[in-house]
Amino acid sequence: VTRIICRQLAPILGDLDANIQLTLDAIRDAVECGAQVVVLPELALSGYMFTSTAEARAVAITAQHPVFAQWADAVRESGAVVVGGFAELGDDALIYNSAAVVCSTGTLAVYRKVHLWDKEKLVFTPGSLAPPVVDTSVGRLGVLICFDLEFPEMPRTLALGGAELIVTPTNWPLETVPAGERVPEVTVAMAAAYSNHVAIAACDRVGAERGQDWNGASCIIDEHGWVVATADQHGVATADLDLSLSHDKRLSPLVDLFGDRRPELYGAVTAPRPDRPSPAISKEK
Amino acid sequence: VTRIICRQLAPILGDLDANIQLTLDAIRDAVECGAQVVVLPELALSGYMFTSTAEARAVAITAQHPVFAQWADAVRESGAVVVGGFAELGDDALIYNSAAVVCSTGTLAVYRKVHLWDKEKLVFTPGSLAPPVVDTSVGRLGVLICFDLEFPEMPRTLALGGAELIVTPTNWPLETVPAGERVPEVTVAMAAAYSNHVAIAACDRVGAERGQDWNGASCIIDEHGWVVATADQHGVATADLDLSLSHDKRLSPLVDLFGDRRPELYGAVTAPRPDRPSPAISKEK
Repeated sequence: VTRIICRQLAPILGDLDANIQLTLDAIRDAVECGAQVVVLPELALSGYMFTSTAEARAVAITAQHPVFAQWADAVRESGAVVVGGFAELGDDALIYNSAAVVCSTGTLAVYRKVHLWDKEKLVFTPGSLAPPVVDTSVGRLGVLICFDLEFPEMPRTLALGGAELIVTPTNWPLETVPAGERVPEVTVAMAAAYSNHVAIAACDRVGAERGQDWNGASCIIDEHGWVVATADQHGVATADLDLSLSHDKRLSPLVDLFGDRRPELYGAVTAPRPDRPSPAISKEK
Repeated sequence: VTRIICRQLAPILGDLDANIQLTLDAIRDAVECGAQVVVLPELALSGYMFTSTAEARAVAITAQHPVFAQWADAVRESGAVVVGGFAELGDDALIYNSAAVVCSTGTLAVYRKVHLWDKEKLVFTPGSLAPPVVDTSVGRLGVLICFDLEFPEMPRTLALGGAELIVTPTNWPLETVPAGERVPEVTVAMAAAYSNHVAIAACDRVGAERGQDWNGASCIIDEHGWVVATADQHGVATADLDLSLSHDKRLSPLVDLFGDRRPELYGAVTAPRPDRPSPAISKEK
C-alpha cells in the first residue's frame, strides 16, 4: 500500500520565504509520518488572493527555483513524492498557476492549470498542455489543479492515461451548503473516482486571505469513490491505499468501465430516431 | 416552473398486461398531482431480471405498441410528458433496453440504452445511436438509461446538446454503502448536475425480482447539484424546478462552465513537460 498525506496549509499571501518554510516543515512532518505521497495546496508557495498579475509576479518563481531542490532534499531518505502548487514565472515571462511533482532526484513534472477559476483569469495565463501522468517510484500520478477536477474530461483523461492516483492541489472557496451535505467539490471528486475507478487525493487550504475563507475539505478517496480520509484538527489527511487496485477497470466479468465506453457516440446528440418515422399513435386500447 | 414526478414502481417480471396497468395508474396519479414530466423506471413494462434474450423477447414490444398511445391518452388533458423504460423488439428483430418519450400527441423519441450493465449484455443488444435531446412542450429533455449516467461523457453530451433536464429511468441494484453515505449512483448524478449545471431526474424501481433488490434511490436534482426530492413512502418523488435555469452556464461574469472547456486538451495526457529539459537539482539552500 501507499501512504498518502495531504497537508492543508495556510500560506501567507505574497510571502515566499515564509511559505517555503511552511511547505518544508509540512513535507518533513509528513515524511516522519510515513508519507510516500505528500500533497500540498494549490499556490502553496504564493497564496491565492492576488488582485493583479503584477502582484502575483512579485512572488512567482521559475520551475528551476531552489525550493524544489529543498523539497527533493526533504524526501531524499524516504523516497516520497511531493505535489504542491506555486505561482510560476514561465520562460515566456507569463505567470501560471502551476503544480510541481518532485521526488528525491528532482522535479519530475510541472503542470500549468488549464481551467482557471473566475478572477484567476485576471491574474494567470491558462496552461496550454494537457495534464501529465507521471511515473514515480510510488505510483503513476495524474495531476490536476482545483477547478480542473470539475471538468469530467480531465480526471477521465488521466485515468485513461494510466493514472493510479489523481493528485489535486486545491483552494476551494468556502460556500454555504445545505445541512448534512458535502461541499460539491468533494461530491464531484467522489464521482470522478467512482466513474474512473481511480483513487483521488485533493489537498485544500485554510487561513483566510483578504476576506476569503476556504472549505478545508481535503479528502483522500479510494478507487470505489468512498472518502477514506479528511483533514484532522491539524489539517492533516492520511490514508493508506493500494494504488494497484486502480488498474483493473473490470467490476465483474461482464463490466469493464473503460472497455464499455462508446467514444464514437460521445459529443453529439441524436435527433429523435432520425432513421425511422415517428410511430403513428394507435387508438386501439 | 415545471413539476417533475418520478414514480418508483415495482414491475412484475414478464407480465406485460400488469405492467401496462401499473404504468397507466402511475401516470394518471402523477398527472392528478400536477406532473408535467412523469418519469418511470427502466424496463417498467417488462421487469429486469431476465436470464436470456428469449425470455426478454417474450415480453418485448415494438415502439408502435398501443401502450404508448395509452400513455399519450393519459397525459392528453395535462400536456405532460412521460419517459419510461421498456424491452423493445426492434425492426431488426433484436431486443433493446429502451426508453420512450411520450407526449399527448404521441411518441417523440425512443432511446436504446448504449451502456449495458453486466448481465444485461447476455440479454439485450446495445443501442447504436447517441442519446436524444427531445424538444417537448415542457422543456428540452435529454434521456439516459441507468448505467449510461455513470459515463460522464453522456450527461455532458446531453447538456452540451441543450438538455434542460436529463431524465434517467434506472434499475439501481441494492448495494451496501458505508453508514451515512448516499448510494454512489446518486453521487454520480449530483456531480453530473453540478458539472453541467443541468437538472437531473432519475427514477429507480422497487420490488424484488429473483432475489435482486433495488436501491429505491430515485432523486430529482437541481442545476446546482443538490438533491431536491427523493421517493416518499409511496415511491413518489416530486419537485418543481425552473428548467430555464439550466440554460446559462455562467456562474459569474468570469466563469462559464461550457465556455471554459478546453476540448482540444481532452483525451490525451501530456508527458511531463516535453518542451523543456527537466530542471537540474540545485544544491543551493
